[in-house]
Amino acid sequence: MATVAVVLSGCGLFDGSEIHESVLTLLALDREGAAVKIFAPSDPQKHVVDHLCGKVAGGEKRNILEESARIARGKIQDLSRAEIEYFDAVIFPGGSGIVKNLSDFAENGADCHIHPKVERLILDAMEQKKVLGFMCLAPLLAAKVGTRAGRKPIVTLGNDAEMANAVQAMGAIHKACSAIDVVVDENNFIVTTPAYMLAKSISEAEIGISELVRTVLSMI
Amino acid sequence: MATVAVVLSGCGLFDGSEIHESVLTLLALDREGAAVKIFAPSDPQKHVVDHLCGKVAGGEKRNILEESARIARGKIQDLSRAEIEYFDAVIFPGGSGIVKNLSDFAENGADCHIHPKVERLILDAMEQKKVLGFMCLAPLLAAKVGTRAGRKPIVTLGNDAEMANAVQAMGAIHKACSAIDVVVDENNFIVTTPAYMLAKSISEAEIGISELVRTVLSMI
Repeated sequence: MATVAVVLSGCGLFDGSEIHESVLTLLALDREGAAVKIFAPSDPQKHVVDHLCGKVAGGEKRNILEESARIARGKIQDLSRAEIEYFDAVIFPGGSGIVKNLSDFAENGADCHIHPKVERLILDAMEQKKVLGFMCLAPLLAAKVGTRAGRKPIVTLGNDAEMANAVQAMGAIHKACSAIDVVVDENNFIVTTPAYMLAKSISEAEIGISELVRTVLSMI
Repeated sequence: MATVAVVLSGCGLFDGSEIHESVLTLLALDREGAAVKIFAPSDPQKHVVDHLCGKVAGGEKRNILEESARIARGKIQDLSRAEIEYFDAVIFPGGSGIVKNLSDFAENGADCHIHPKVERLILDAMEQKKVLGFMCLAPLLAAKVGTRAGRKPIVTLGNDAEMANAVQAMGAIHKACSAIDVVVDENNFIVTTPAYMLAKSISEAEIGISELVRTVLSMI
């Protein structure tokens, strides 16, 4: 049985993990018989967004791990406790938490910094040839960490020119991809899919995410 | 094409809508080609629970509609705007929001009061023979509203004796049911399934929820 770490970044597409993507990842992993452990860093969110009006809720503070625990139904651990030796693969669902909480890409673009615990986990995975899955905005993490380590990851963020440029500026390679397909980087054991970067419906997102999960598990 | 209203009660199993159940409901409806509109009441949550430790977070205040908007990806409306004429069916995912935000069952048990806008919508649906779907804790709403209107709804909350007793005390009928099956009340056009009252995994919950959605749509 494969053991997979899923890394969340909050609870909600505008300030944390995209909820549908996270749940559909857990569903696909469970259907394929994988054992799953969920992690998130225990740090303050960059901010809280009112998802009704899309604006930042001034003065509110929330913790990434506590909010991620909502998606994980309480079964979640601090990212500090994720040791790559115990896992065959690591998957990152998307959402703005990727560019606000797990990195500062929302502010600094291609020159972004990655959360040190996230960078450590991805680097360890790459060094030990574990399989990495990223969807939606999360492939930015693979591109940045990989290029900083002297690799040239191949990833997709859908077909957005600005995102493709950011990935190329980091030194990685961007491949256009539809919501129901995946891009596989066989040298670096990285699988990516656009999910809600392109998906027009939850069922379309589900097709790409299930394909990512199956592909990740097949590469272990 | 069927048009279905989905009513949420927050975002998180301990103080709002159960996230997996809500997402799996939206997935099943989309797969079956139904048009969906999502609603929640714009009222303060009873409280906020830290989902990491399971304890009430003192002093925090959140709004049911704003938090539900996280699951709805911002596409949600105030429950006041849900007019039954425009819908073929209404579905309530579960979670503690059912007994804390949409009713006060958590405090008052079988003598609970139902949120007036929720009661109005369910009553209108029953009067106009629209189909109603409830999962997890939500069948309590059907039992209470139905019996207050002189009906005798047949529902399931799984196989928990305390919950079955509460439903019978209201004057409704409880039927035991597994997580992968549904109970159909043909007289009152009500479909119920236990979901995470019994499901041991997300894939098990998905089977029962998909069956509920298909059954609801088949009864329109």
